[in-house]
Amino acid sequence: MALIVQKYGGTSVGNVERIRNVAIRVAQTKKKGHKVIVVVSAMSGETNKLVDLANQTKEFPIGREYDVVVSTGEQVTIGLLSLALQDLGFGAKSFLGYQVPIITDNAFSKARIEEIETANIFSELKKGNIVVVAGFQGVDRNGNITTLGRGGSDTTAVALAAALKADVCEIYTDVEGVYTTDPNICPDARKLKKVSYDEMLEMASLGAKVLQTRSVEFAKKYNVPVMVKSSFTDAEGTLVTKEDKSMEKVIVSGVTYNKDEAKITIARVPDRPGIAAKLFAPLTKANINVDMIVQNVSHDTYTDLTFTVSKADFKKALQLVEKTAKVIKAGKVLSDTSIAKVSIVGAGMRSHAGVASKMFETMAKEGINIQMISTSEIKISAVIDIKYTELAVRVLHKAFELGKEEVTEEK
Amino acid sequence: MALIVQKYGGTSVGNVERIRNVAIRVAQTKKKGHKVIVVVSAMSGETNKLVDLANQTKEFPIGREYDVVVSTGEQVTIGLLSLALQDLGFGAKSFLGYQVPIITDNAFSKARIEEIETANIFSELKKGNIVVVAGFQGVDRNGNITTLGRGGSDTTAVALAAALKADVCEIYTDVEGVYTTDPNICPDARKLKKVSYDEMLEMASLGAKVLQTRSVEFAKKYNVPVMVKSSFTDAEGTLVTKEDKSMEKVIVSGVTYNKDEAKITIARVPDRPGIAAKLFAPLTKANINVDMIVQNVSHDTYTDLTFTVSKADFKKALQLVEKTAKVIKAGKVLSDTSIAKVSIVGAGMRSHAGVASKMFETMAKEGINIQMISTSEIKISAVIDIKYTELAVRVLHKAFELGKEEVTEEK
Repeated sequence: MALIVQKYGGTSVGNVERIRNVAIRVAQTKKKGHKVIVVVSAMSGETNKLVDLANQTKEFPIGREYDVVVSTGEQVTIGLLSLALQDLGFGAKSFLGYQVPIITDNAFSKARIEEIETANIFSELKKGNIVVVAGFQGVDRNGNITTLGRGGSDTTAVALAAALKADVCEIYTDVEGVYTTDPNICPDARKLKKVSYDEMLEMASLGAKVLQTRSVEFAKKYNVPVMVKSSFTDAEGTLVTKEDKSMEKVIVSGVTYNKDEAKITIARVPDRPGIAAKLFAPLTKANINVDMIVQNVSHDTYTDLTFTVSKADFKKALQLVEKTAKVIKAGKVLSDTSIAKVSIVGAGMRSHAGVASKMFETMAKEGINIQMISTSEIKISAVIDIKYTELAVRVLHKAFELGKEEVTEEK
Repeated sequence: MALIVQKYGGTSVGNVERIRNVAIRVAQTKKKGHKVIVVVSAMSGETNKLVDLANQTKEFPIGREYDVVVSTGEQVTIGLLSLALQDLGFGAKSFLGYQVPIITDNAFSKARIEEIETANIFSELKKGNIVVVAGFQGVDRNGNITTLGRGGSDTTAVALAAALKADVCEIYTDVEGVYTTDPNICPDARKLKKVSYDEMLEMASLGAKVLQTRSVEFAKKYNVPVMVKSSFTDAEGTLVTKEDKSMEKVIVSGVTYNKDEAKITIARVPDRPGIAAKLFAPLTKANINVDMIVQNVSHDTYTDLTFTVSKADFKKALQLVEKTAKVIKAGKVLSDTSIAKVSIVGAGMRSHAGVASKMFETMAKEGINIQMISTSEIKISAVIDIKYTELAVRVLHKAFELGKEEVTEEK
């Protein structure tokens, strides 16, 4: 008998019929003798509708009352799923954030979980009930409703699994798992049986939108095994777990891409200590996340500095940088929104040389120019012209032999 | 400086624009220096939508989880109204049932308020904030969300006014107050400046759907002055208050009608002690409310018994009665769904004779046959053929001189 946390996203609970299907899946797990805690998101579209209402009512609505409004979507779903489980003859009880309680700080709409009390949930499990918990929401120490930010239900599920010391946290979604790359680009993309937390983190933040980054960080910190599966099929999913020896053998696990960034270059930046700080301070203040930063070796007393931001932040970032550039007497500010970031990710990279050169050669052969490069221990990213995105992904996927293995195995 | 509770119904907060208008009204009161607590319903249509979802998910969904689902409508509105007030530059804080807390028993979907703690609300008022409270919902002593039943927001408002010792509870709705009768039937129906709690109770339960009956009982018990006004105009409303001398002078305050009842007659009921109890016990068990009961003087050892129930309960009531009639060896069971109940209500009736005979004569003159009669201290009701409803209302309204007074005043 295992203790299992299952999480179903908005598409999986998008209407009453789907909620009833989720109830059947949950009931199957329960019937096997497991203790089950289910975390659900709002029905698809509902949160957007609530956000729209808030935005129509007040300019910059973020704050305590915003969270009161947007947290209602999950409340509807936990009630309905509990009813659907009861309709199947199972005992089920719903929990809102404050009823668990899932205690967070008071950073409304991006609250962080500080503590989860488990007594109430364990007491219901003991009675034989299925516990249904609202994702995305918590309560601060003054009893105010808080929300965890977009995709927060993943974090709720993983945090609950950690607090309850669950055997596994199953994330049900509309894809069957984590793939070596986007199957829409490479039809031979292969579903991975296992990825390490670090690989998943690189993939999640690089654009493979299967799991929210924060939830993976949480899983890594508390060593929670996370199984990503489809809520529509019975196919085996992908296990996100701590790195083991077998993973190191695989040099590259996946190829990801991100078309949502833009590039800003400041030419002829005076090469003095503190200049970079001066350039980036206004961006930090404006809450703009800078992704890659490249500074070329300086010629004379000048250097060129290039960085990328998300397209949503691009306009504002450009304004701020142009202002600072004048102040520090730098040269022209250039920008480009037609870029893409293509990355290869793999835990095995650490112990294997030559991965980067193979990546660059592969792209060079196709005449794809690399504009920026950034690396981490388990990832290499290259910024290229957006029009080459699919081509780059395909040739890299092939070069690192990430395609379906069936054929080679039969040899 | 007064302490004022204002309640806005679903139509008044039906969309963002209307919520912003409510915010302007609330702000006007606040600007006059008053302390304001606002109670709101769900946006019109929302509760029905939630009830539909629950009904689609489980057969007989009433219970803990049903209340979790249907209480979300008010949660959205308190958040949005608070945002709208903040947008106007006012401090506003929303309260859910459990945050006040409004403590109820655990009769889900028809919970009764047991206690309201006022410290949290007073603390916000002290800070100069407008307090926005979710109507219709409470919390039981185990932290479960409960709801008060349809129209429960009126009860929330009046109960809060009582607990906070407010100077007045203003109920904003889509009519301008309480009228002598339905203006759709009598164009000269007059808005009443004042009605007593008892008159309002008779009118509310007789079909004038301005205030929920329970809220009036609450207001009477705690002597809360209730002002019924329109949320769309600035017209003066109707004050519901305790009876005073001036009210006794008015013999009849209003004429009401109800087309939502049906009549069941059991012929030749053996006239023995305990027989009526035997007939009505199954109805009570099935939670069917019996309104009027008339038993004729018995001839021989038999009597005829007639009663009315709401049309919604009619079919079930008929089945149950037919069963019992066989058991007790009564005669035929007759029924009629084409009836209406017309009533005259007035606190002054107590001290005036001849009101009933005037009522009956007025109807007789028009050839309207009276099938059943029931009376209370301040009300006389007659059951008639449904086709005479409007006619009866008009002639009674005229006979008791309830029309607009302007003309006579100018004489």
